[in-house]
Amino acid sequence: MPPTIRPVSGGSRRGGAGRAVIQLLIGRPLRTTETAKEHISPVQGLPALSLDALTSVAYGPEAVVVVLAVAGAGALHLVLPITGAIVALLAILVFSYRQVIDAYPAGGGAYAVSRANLGARASLLAGASLIVDYTLTVAVSIAAGVGALTSAFPSLSSATVPLCLGILALITLLNLRGLGETARAFLLPTLVFIVGLLAILAVGLIHPLAVHAAQPGRSLLAGRDLATVSTLLVLKAFSAGCSALTGVEAIANGVPLFKPPAPVHAKRTELLLGGILGVMLLGLATLARRWHIGPRSHQTVLSQIMGEAVGRHWAYYVVSITITVVLALAANTSFGGLPVLTSLLARDSYLPHFFSLRGDRQVFSNGIFVLSALSAALLLAVGGDTNTLIPLFAIGVFTGFTLSQSGLVVHWFRERPPRWRARASVNGLGAVTTATATVIFLVTKFTSGAWVVVVAVPAFIALFWRIHSYYERVGLELGLGRVPRRPHGKRTLVIVPITNVWRPTERALSEALSIGDEVVAVSVVVDHGDAAESSRASLERDWARWAPGVPLRILHTEYASIVEPIVAFIDRARADSDQQIVVLIPVVVPDRLRYRALHNHIEVVLSAALKSRTDVVVARVPMSVPEPEEEDDPAPVQPAPG
Amino acid sequence: MPPTIRPVSGGSRRGGAGRAVIQLLIGRPLRTTETAKEHISPVQGLPALSLDALTSVAYGPEAVVVVLAVAGAGALHLVLPITGAIVALLAILVFSYRQVIDAYPAGGGAYAVSRANLGARASLLAGASLIVDYTLTVAVSIAAGVGALTSAFPSLSSATVPLCLGILALITLLNLRGLGETARAFLLPTLVFIVGLLAILAVGLIHPLAVHAAQPGRSLLAGRDLATVSTLLVLKAFSAGCSALTGVEAIANGVPLFKPPAPVHAKRTELLLGGILGVMLLGLATLARRWHIGPRSHQTVLSQIMGEAVGRHWAYYVVSITITVVLALAANTSFGGLPVLTSLLARDSYLPHFFSLRGDRQVFSNGIFVLSALSAALLLAVGGDTNTLIPLFAIGVFTGFTLSQSGLVVHWFRERPPRWRARASVNGLGAVTTATATVIFLVTKFTSGAWVVVVAVPAFIALFWRIHSYYERVGLELGLGRVPRRPHGKRTLVIVPITNVWRPTERALSEALSIGDEVVAVSVVVDHGDAAESSRASLERDWARWAPGVPLRILHTEYASIVEPIVAFIDRARADSDQQIVVLIPVVVPDRLRYRALHNHIEVVLSAALKSRTDVVVARVPMSVPEPEEEDDPAPVQPAPG
Repeated sequence: MPPTIRPVSGGSRRGGAGRAVIQLLIGRPLRTTETAKEHISPVQGLPALSLDALTSVAYGPEAVVVVLAVAGAGALHLVLPITGAIVALLAILVFSYRQVIDAYPAGGGAYAVSRANLGARASLLAGASLIVDYTLTVAVSIAAGVGALTSAFPSLSSATVPLCLGILALITLLNLRGLGETARAFLLPTLVFIVGLLAILAVGLIHPLAVHAAQPGRSLLAGRDLATVSTLLVLKAFSAGCSALTGVEAIANGVPLFKPPAPVHAKRTELLLGGILGVMLLGLATLARRWHIGPRSHQTVLSQIMGEAVGRHWAYYVVSITITVVLALAANTSFGGLPVLTSLLARDSYLPHFFSLRGDRQVFSNGIFVLSALSAALLLAVGGDTNTLIPLFAIGVFTGFTLSQSGLVVHWFRERPPRWRARASVNGLGAVTTATATVIFLVTKFTSGAWVVVVAVPAFIALFWRIHSYYERVGLELGLGRVPRRPHGKRTLVIVPITNVWRPTERALSEALSIGDEVVAVSVVVDHGDAAESSRASLERDWARWAPGVPLRILHTEYASIVEPIVAFIDRARADSDQQIVVLIPVVVPDRLRYRALHNHIEVVLSAALKSRTDVVVARVPMSVPEPEEEDDPAPVQPAPG
Repeated sequence: MPPTIRPVSGGSRRGGAGRAVIQLLIGRPLRTTETAKEHISPVQGLPALSLDALTSVAYGPEAVVVVLAVAGAGALHLVLPITGAIVALLAILVFSYRQVIDAYPAGGGAYAVSRANLGARASLLAGASLIVDYTLTVAVSIAAGVGALTSAFPSLSSATVPLCLGILALITLLNLRGLGETARAFLLPTLVFIVGLLAILAVGLIHPLAVHAAQPGRSLLAGRDLATVSTLLVLKAFSAGCSALTGVEAIANGVPLFKPPAPVHAKRTELLLGGILGVMLLGLATLARRWHIGPRSHQTVLSQIMGEAVGRHWAYYVVSITITVVLALAANTSFGGLPVLTSLLARDSYLPHFFSLRGDRQVFSNGIFVLSALSAALLLAVGGDTNTLIPLFAIGVFTGFTLSQSGLVVHWFRERPPRWRARASVNGLGAVTTATATVIFLVTKFTSGAWVVVVAVPAFIALFWRIHSYYERVGLELGLGRVPRRPHGKRTLVIVPITNVWRPTERALSEALSIGDEVVAVSVVVDHGDAAESSRASLERDWARWAPGVPLRILHTEYASIVEPIVAFIDRARADSDQQIVVLIPVVVPDRLRYRALHNHIEVVLSAALKSRTDVVVARVPMSVPEPEEEDDPAPVQPAPG
């Protein structure tokens, strides 16, 4: 039975404090088996992976209303059919993504689906789009959350950027601890938000007083005929409202996070999300139409509807504040998705392989760090302002939707299961609709920021290709997948640079004799007048007295560098013979870090100089100075070691 | 005949640009034999080592006048006898230091003399005092030079600190190139200064008009009786004027810088300095007395005398501007002295040994860097203001004088050459006088800044002791000066951590077989479900197909870290046997630096983890990726290397 290894205890004194702080913040290292308890249930999947989608009710319906209001109050009744279309699309997406979960239970969403069905190029477009949009989700959600907070407490508005970065840091930390605990931390506010908003909508829909309430939006809008509402406007309103659908793919990307059987639980969460989001959107649209809600400055559409339904009482404030909190937490959705995506890209050699390594807490720490850094950069670039980010938003997600659904169409055509034509039609409809929305997004938002996405996505794709071609080349050049020739040993010449005859030298020579067939000690004397001759003579005398059975070669130089003569000696040895050359450098390791400056670090300079000579094995032979027994005054002066 | 090594050409691509910039700034590396031409002549010794002393005429006489003026205009006639006493002391110092040069031709001045005659403790007091004063000389001279410049061009005064640091940087660079070139750069302004000032004094002393010139100082001062001038005041004036003597020791400290025979040339320079400085001081005092020069705001005593002698014409302006330049260059005196002093302290193990190493230009670069850094800190701390620094100044130098002359007294008593009593008397007189001056300095300046010196000097001494006791302990613990036991080889077990079967693995195993009696490859599999089993099986299959003749041990772990299982395996091997353990880590070295992030750097983490296990030899086995032939699109995806 193979040995199972426990983590090393004790060890070096150094780094102990740093490690303790890190463990305090993110917790002790976890076994792979312990991460089972970190896996999430369907209900926990809502706060962990679905907050981005759920919180989009805070800006999705408003986006529809704002576009329609341009055509006058008469157009506002279109909010219900348009929302109906969006919810229908939501249903298509939910159905489609449940199929994705079944087909690709390892996660990866649009990336995995398009990779399997549309080829590498399409999958990289999906990957790049998703990276851009995950980052935007973090930035937009945090900025919107802080925006809501600073609207409630205007005195905080000068601290917008620090607040954004502070929330980002907190979310990053929670994710480094592991998503299980994150999900637990987010569960309560998510449930308050869902239950509270659904209750408010229910009260609004059935309350007898509410039915007869005033129509506050009407007076603000000029009456217009229905015929003037153009198809383009309807499409614009539809695609603007589709921002409410960002985030529905996160569950399919994060399937491995669920407790087994993961696909079953993930599909259940997807259905739960679709149901709740659909009911909320339809409820909001119904009430918006009934009460003729229009856009108002300093008051969101959601806030108007809630105020109408239950009045500005405690329930309104509780849910409002919860929305602020949950919007900020929505950023977390990306932390569930992007690290998994980057680990898949790394596994396929499109990103550096370290993205596929798990940290001590069994999470993909590197992906978490990169997402955090990119989001922080975005937040700093826009000064924490949501409106500057919104035009960039949703384009990436809808690109992913399109690729994912196109991929499924190909999938059905290839696999041809029962009812494959119907399934392909549904996915085809979804692909066409989301593709249309993507094109409209790009056209209408290009100059106001979407160009950034148009630049960033191809840049990411180019980076992926470049990394992949490097790994390909390395694999080819270094014979990956081929059987290498049989390893064979050679005679070994060990070169030991020395300065004194003392225990570190003895130690290095002993190790040299252990590993080498031939050993030579070298020492450098700088020709600087009589001092050089006397130091040479003294070293040769000490060597003769010691008689270690190893020849000593003294190298003379007229230059100040004592490393270059050693390198030149090694180069001659390399040229002269076919031996394996090993350089063992004796190094004194002080017991306290502060004494490091008291030793000449020739091994650092020599190792650097030999780095380009890849046929030479270079090793330091460390010897530690024991702890002092007591602090005593120095005795009469004598020359001391280097 | 031993081989003489030339510097390595070519080599690693890295650092090439940085090295080129450095060589552009400070010049190519020099041979030790080439530094002969860097050695200086007696006349070059004036700008290189004596500017501090020479330029003190700009503030020394003024210090006397300022003190005497307190007692009224009648006291001003004492300027001549007091200056006479100072010049007599100068003569004693010059004579004394010529003896020092003879007795200690290796340089070191007060440090070497007191070390030889008064013991280690006194020499460390001298060393610490000199370090403090060298730093102050740099700061005061640069600040005074910039002060003169900003007085001439008031618009520059807002840039005082940048100007100070710029001049400091320039001087540092010149010194890193080598003192020979520095001396050459400073020769012209020094000669203009000496010849110009001496000519002006000559004109003042013999010009018929000048003899009958007005007495501008008289009207400003109230008449007082001679009897009211107390002994204390005279002593204060004397010790204040002794600031003109700072720097006369620099030549004795820098003897090795002179061209051979160095002592002869150094003594000649000392005499030259003493003669010029004495003539200048006496000339200035004579003229000051003749014209009853008193202190004036915004006009220095030197400037008044020069104006009286030749009028405010071209000669006045040329010499005035030259004084500004030469004051700034006076800072250079310390760069000639301190690096030699720190190299001596390092040689005696009172400072880190790297201070005794020469740079590529054969100068003690580390001493130059430290002096530059300390001076920059001082200049920043006082904002480039000379007056804040003056009270700290000269105390260190006079401590050095006192120790040096006391040391010589001991020297004469020990050696007893002809006329030793007379010589001892002269040095004894010098020691008493400089000791008195030091005490008066401390008493009168303590609260206005001298306390900094009182703190700094013991702090330096404590540092010296501490460093020395560490080196002592290391030498003792590691058997320096004793014959170590005979080195002997052991059986060697080589452990090779691997991830794939490919050429880097073959390479590492070949080197392992070259150096080891027993070789084992290890690989870590993280237990993470089925993937672990399949990766284990695939690696074992590849290994069996290859059959390298080396056993493969697969280590299982439930934690994320793949380094800790390897460390634990090595620890078990260490505990089980008496073998020498060598760890060879295969490392892929990319052809471009930017590809480094694409490789997992397990060797870095593993080396760090093994650093505390000093009985294990750790080496990387680098294998470079060849340059790409052409940039081609990647072929179909395949798993790629880590």
